[in-house]
Amino acid sequence: MYSIGIDIGGTNTDIGLVTENGSIIARRNLPTASYTDYHLYVKDIMGQINDMLSGNKLKLGDLSGIGIGAPNGNFYTGCVDYAPNLNMKGLLEFEKEFHKYADIPVVLSNDANAAAYGEYVYGGAKGMKHFIMFTLGTGVGSGIVVDGKLVHGSTGAAGELGHNILIPGGRQCGCGRQGCLEAYASARGIVRTYCELRAESKCQGECQKDWISPSVPDSEVTSLMIGRAANAGEPLALETYRRTADLLGLAMANAVTFSAPEAIFLMGGPTKVGEPLLKPLRESFDKYMLNIYKGKCRIMMSQLKDNEVAILGSAALIHLRK
Amino acid sequence: MYSIGIDIGGTNTDIGLVTENGSIIARRNLPTASYTDYHLYVKDIMGQINDMLSGNKLKLGDLSGIGIGAPNGNFYTGCVDYAPNLNMKGLLEFEKEFHKYADIPVVLSNDANAAAYGEYVYGGAKGMKHFIMFTLGTGVGSGIVVDGKLVHGSTGAAGELGHNILIPGGRQCGCGRQGCLEAYASARGIVRTYCELRAESKCQGECQKDWISPSVPDSEVTSLMIGRAANAGEPLALETYRRTADLLGLAMANAVTFSAPEAIFLMGGPTKVGEPLLKPLRESFDKYMLNIYKGKCRIMMSQLKDNEVAILGSAALIHLRK
Repeated sequence: MYSIGIDIGGTNTDIGLVTENGSIIARRNLPTASYTDYHLYVKDIMGQINDMLSGNKLKLGDLSGIGIGAPNGNFYTGCVDYAPNLNMKGLLEFEKEFHKYADIPVVLSNDANAAAYGEYVYGGAKGMKHFIMFTLGTGVGSGIVVDGKLVHGSTGAAGELGHNILIPGGRQCGCGRQGCLEAYASARGIVRTYCELRAESKCQGECQKDWISPSVPDSEVTSLMIGRAANAGEPLALETYRRTADLLGLAMANAVTFSAPEAIFLMGGPTKVGEPLLKPLRESFDKYMLNIYKGKCRIMMSQLKDNEVAILGSAALIHLRK
Repeated sequence: MYSIGIDIGGTNTDIGLVTENGSIIARRNLPTASYTDYHLYVKDIMGQINDMLSGNKLKLGDLSGIGIGAPNGNFYTGCVDYAPNLNMKGLLEFEKEFHKYADIPVVLSNDANAAAYGEYVYGGAKGMKHFIMFTLGTGVGSGIVVDGKLVHGSTGAAGELGHNILIPGGRQCGCGRQGCLEAYASARGIVRTYCELRAESKCQGECQKDWISPSVPDSEVTSLMIGRAANAGEPLALETYRRTADLLGLAMANAVTFSAPEAIFLMGGPTKVGEPLLKPLRESFDKYMLNIYKGKCRIMMSQLKDNEVAILGSAALIHLRK
C-alpha cells in the first residue's frame, strides 16, 4: 500500500506519494497562500494526487490513506480550527472535504506531531514506545509519543512544550505570556539572545572571518549567521548557544519527569549548528535531570532528511487512523 | 470479583479487600518498619489476605488480583527497586514473591500513580481519558493518565512532576537539585515559605486566635498550623498560600501543555486548607495557561476518602494487569 503525506505550510503545501517503507516516489507543491477557499484548495490537491497516482500506474484504491500535517490540525475533528498563518479562514473541515473525493482514511495532526510520528514510523525512533520530538524553527513545537501513540490529549492540542514557562516573568513570548521556552530556543529567541549579549558587551574588536560584524544591525542578524559565527569561535555566539542550551536542556529534563522517554529528538534549523549547541545541551540536560532518569534518556537528532520530514511525518499519521 | 489493595508506607502497610465497585469490606495493617526481610513480609501479608478472605467466605480464586502501591514501585518489573524509607533493602521482588502464594495478577506502581488510578477507577476521574493527579504531602507526587492508561514511561518511573524545576537556581530540593515544585508545594516547602516570610516580616504584633504565635520556633511550625492560621486570616499564612499557589498553578499549567488533560486533581494534607490555597491557585492556573487550553481543564479535588484512597488506588492497579 501507498500513502499520501500533505504538509500544509503558510506559504507552500508539499504533497508526496509515499511507499510503505518511507520512500517518496513523487511529490508536488501548491502555493497555500494563494488560496482563500479551502474547497478549491482541496480540489486542487486531489488533482495533484490523482496526477501522481496515474503517473505511477496507481489508483486511489492503492492508498491506505491521506495524512495531513497542518498548523493547529486537530486529530479528533479532522479540521484545522484556527490557523493565523493561512489565508483560508474559519473552520477548515479537511477530513470531510477530502472524503468527498476519496473514501479512504484521512488523518490530521499538527506539524510537530507529524514530525514526531514520522520519526517513529520511518526514522530514528522506530521501535521506541516513549520519546519526545522538539522542533526548533520560527517557533518551538513538540510531539510526544507515549506507549507508541501520539499524545493528543482531551482537546487534540496536547504537546505544546514550546510554551512551557521556564522563567516566570521572563522574556515576552508571542503567545502573550512570559518566559516560554519558545521565547528563548526558537530561531527568533536565539537572535534575541545574541543581540542582547551584543548590546551588553563593550567589546567591539576586530571581526574575524564568519564573525558577525558590529555593523550588521540587530534586525538583520539571523540564527544562521549566529551558527556560523559560533562555529568560527565568536565568543558572543558561543555564549548565545550556551544560554539557549541551558534553557532547552532544562525544558527537556522537565519533560522527562512527565513521560520518562528513552530519547528526546531534535530537528529544525537552529539545531543544525551542531556542537556549539549540542555540547552545552548535553551538559545542561544532565545537570537538570532528576537522578532516577540519569543516563536513561538519549538526545538524538532527527534521522529524516530535511526535505522529506514534512511529507513523511504527514504520511506516517495514517498509522494512527481511527 | 474482588481485589486486594496494598499500600506500602514506610511505617505502616495497609491491606484491603475491595469489591468491584470500590467498597473496602475488610482491612488490615502491618508495621512495615519492623520488617527487614521481604520474604517474611509478603508471607505475613498473605496471612492477612487469607484471613480476610475466609472471614468473608471467599477464596483466592475470587480475587481478580493484588494491586500494590509502593514508593518506587516499578510497574514493568513488579519490584521495588530502591526505597530509602524501607528497612527491607535491595531489590524487593514483590510480584514474584506473591506469585509463590497466589497464581493471580500482581500489579505494582508507585503510590502517586496508584492514587491517580484509584481516582480513575473509583473516584472523580471516572470516564476521563486524560487527567493528572498531584499528591501534596511530605513530598509532591503525581500520576498521569493519557488515553485512559497510566503513563509509566520507558523506565516505569514516569510522572514525577514534583521534580519539575520551576525556579532554576531556586530553593534546594531533597532530590539534590534546585527549584523543584516539591521544594515549594510540599508540606515542608509550605512551612519553609511561612518561616521565611516570618523572618522577613518586622511585624510581631498581637496574636489572634489560631494565628501562629511568634514564640513558636520554626522547627515546630507545621503546614496544619499554617492552614488554620490562613483560615483565621493571618496575613503571613495567607501570603504563604498565595506564593505556594503561584508556583503550583505554574506547574499545573505547564503540565497541561504536555497532555492537555480535562482535569487536574489534587489530594493530600496541604490541599485541605481550602480557599486560602484554592482561590489563588485557580487564578495562577489561569494566568499561566496557554490560550488554547484556557477553560478546558478543571481543577478538582480527589473524591476518594483520605483513609481509603491508598487501598483503593492500589486495588485499582489491577485494571492495568499485563
